[in-house]
Amino acid sequence: MAGTILLVFLFLKFTMPSLLPSFQDVLDAALRLEGIAHRTPVLQSASLNAQLQAQVFIKCENFQRMGAFKFRGGFNALAKLSQAQRQAGVVAYSSGNHAQAVALSARILGVPATIFMPHDASPAKLAATQGYGAEVIGYDRYTEDASAKALQLAHQKGLTFIPPFDHADVLAGQGTAALELFDEVGELDALFVCLGGGGLLSGSALAAKARSPHCKIYGVEPEAGNDTQQSFRKGERVKIATPVTIADGAQTPMVGAITFEIIKALVDDIHTVTDSQLIETMRFYAERMKMVVEPTGCLSLAAAVQAAATLRGQRVGVIISGGNVDLARFAQLLAS
Amino acid sequence: MAGTILLVFLFLKFTMPSLLPSFQDVLDAALRLEGIAHRTPVLQSASLNAQLQAQVFIKCENFQRMGAFKFRGGFNALAKLSQAQRQAGVVAYSSGNHAQAVALSARILGVPATIFMPHDASPAKLAATQGYGAEVIGYDRYTEDASAKALQLAHQKGLTFIPPFDHADVLAGQGTAALELFDEVGELDALFVCLGGGGLLSGSALAAKARSPHCKIYGVEPEAGNDTQQSFRKGERVKIATPVTIADGAQTPMVGAITFEIIKALVDDIHTVTDSQLIETMRFYAERMKMVVEPTGCLSLAAAVQAAATLRGQRVGVIISGGNVDLARFAQLLAS
Repeated sequence: MAGTILLVFLFLKFTMPSLLPSFQDVLDAALRLEGIAHRTPVLQSASLNAQLQAQVFIKCENFQRMGAFKFRGGFNALAKLSQAQRQAGVVAYSSGNHAQAVALSARILGVPATIFMPHDASPAKLAATQGYGAEVIGYDRYTEDASAKALQLAHQKGLTFIPPFDHADVLAGQGTAALELFDEVGELDALFVCLGGGGLLSGSALAAKARSPHCKIYGVEPEAGNDTQQSFRKGERVKIATPVTIADGAQTPMVGAITFEIIKALVDDIHTVTDSQLIETMRFYAERMKMVVEPTGCLSLAAAVQAAATLRGQRVGVIISGGNVDLARFAQLLAS
Repeated sequence: MAGTILLVFLFLKFTMPSLLPSFQDVLDAALRLEGIAHRTPVLQSASLNAQLQAQVFIKCENFQRMGAFKFRGGFNALAKLSQAQRQAGVVAYSSGNHAQAVALSARILGVPATIFMPHDASPAKLAATQGYGAEVIGYDRYTEDASAKALQLAHQKGLTFIPPFDHADVLAGQGTAALELFDEVGELDALFVCLGGGGLLSGSALAAKARSPHCKIYGVEPEAGNDTQQSFRKGERVKIATPVTIADGAQTPMVGAITFEIIKALVDDIHTVTDSQLIETMRFYAERMKMVVEPTGCLSLAAAVQAAATLRGQRVGVIISGGNVDLARFAQLLAS
């Protein structure tokens, strides 16, 4: 079974060379990000280790520039553009972290950026994106198709479209977080990764299989939005209605096409957790580890805690995706 | 003037050899703490660097075990006890982080610990201290002298008293945080350190003068509790009424005798900041750096921001003391 999947992966790898990235692409991305992205810390909690009877290494991408791993992929994609593409500029759409990632990367590289953001995007995220110098165009997320609008503008103006996750350079960039984790702590028995569109998970899987071949890799999504779990079990992508969950970074209705090919080939299973498990994990991070973690960023540890019985005595990696949660919302969730 | 102070320091150093620690004591403490204390990360913020037009390295002792630098000093003091002293046990008093530091160190080393804590100590800190296995004795902080009670019990039962800051082994342990900072980032132009009784500041000064001789060292206390600033300017210790400030870790009415000797000799100045500057800094840490920092831990960065005009182009170190703030209180302060 695994062999068949690997064959399919290798087949796709050679038939879709421009789409499916390899571990080498993750290594190349790491070179591009050196000295530009933060090399985020890996933290441990003695009480967590005691509770799980395991050694848990937490890779803190909430401390990444602009507050999330997304900077890695955005910057890698922009850094690979030709001089002509850079001069023409880029376009993206996002209500969240990808907007800031592209805007900040564009500012660093001197690339004009246009970002479609929903009219009801958080004022903090809107201000941050504009603060990085991007031109922001509003849209109605209930009646308009942001992807179509971004592609149309790209076509009209000769801009390069930077998708949020389903893109070889974006996911190769995201894989550098796991690469740093393995380079710092060595091989692991299991790795838990937050999962929305699958960019962080597929990039992490490429890094894990090269650096720690026996490591089990688990994607984690909210129970209400288990489209990838369904897709993984069915072997083909399943689309669901936009899920209702506090994990706003994982409200994607369907996993990416490219990311799914890598997930099918390299990931061991997809776990789900409830919103109340996310809140409990958020409180643990704040109270015991003194960190602000956004709800989506809590997926990975919540699943590891849930799977504790299977992890005893193991070396376990947990990747936090980000910490971009409005402080009032943060306080409200902790009090709930 | 500086020469005279240095002579006094050297005189005291040789006449009070058991009291005034040296940089070698900090190095010895670092060996004892290796693999036991967390080597906490040093983080940077691009937006902070841009705002201050300086490079700011933030040493995050809020990620230390039990949530504060105090673990370093407590553990170092207990690790230096003789076998007989360990068997007899230790006693301490504290309403806050020192209680947990001694209790956790005692558990790790198998030493019985008795801690005097005020009846109105935060339930979380009380539970944590008891959770580490220490025997807690309540006292009334308004009518009883905890120090006298602790010393009396030490005398009666042959216990070793572990003071919260005014102790050579305690402050040498605290100095290991700055030692790690210099070992990680190299020499600095200025170092800002939170200041209550002076344990962290005096230990940091010992490390700084050895690792980065030209680095200016600044202690920072709350404006309402500027006893050390007054003492520093007068050249002798000044005692004030217990100050009213949100920086509960810096509510000490007087700097320590041993710590003050080191501060007089090695520290360049004492700054003060207001409670509203602390809240602003707390919000910055949570919003931009995704960290929970207790009010006292915000002293150092608040002072660096205040002194920004003098720091342009410099390499600046900032030590965060801890992150032990009740989450409800944290949310309330952020909303204020």
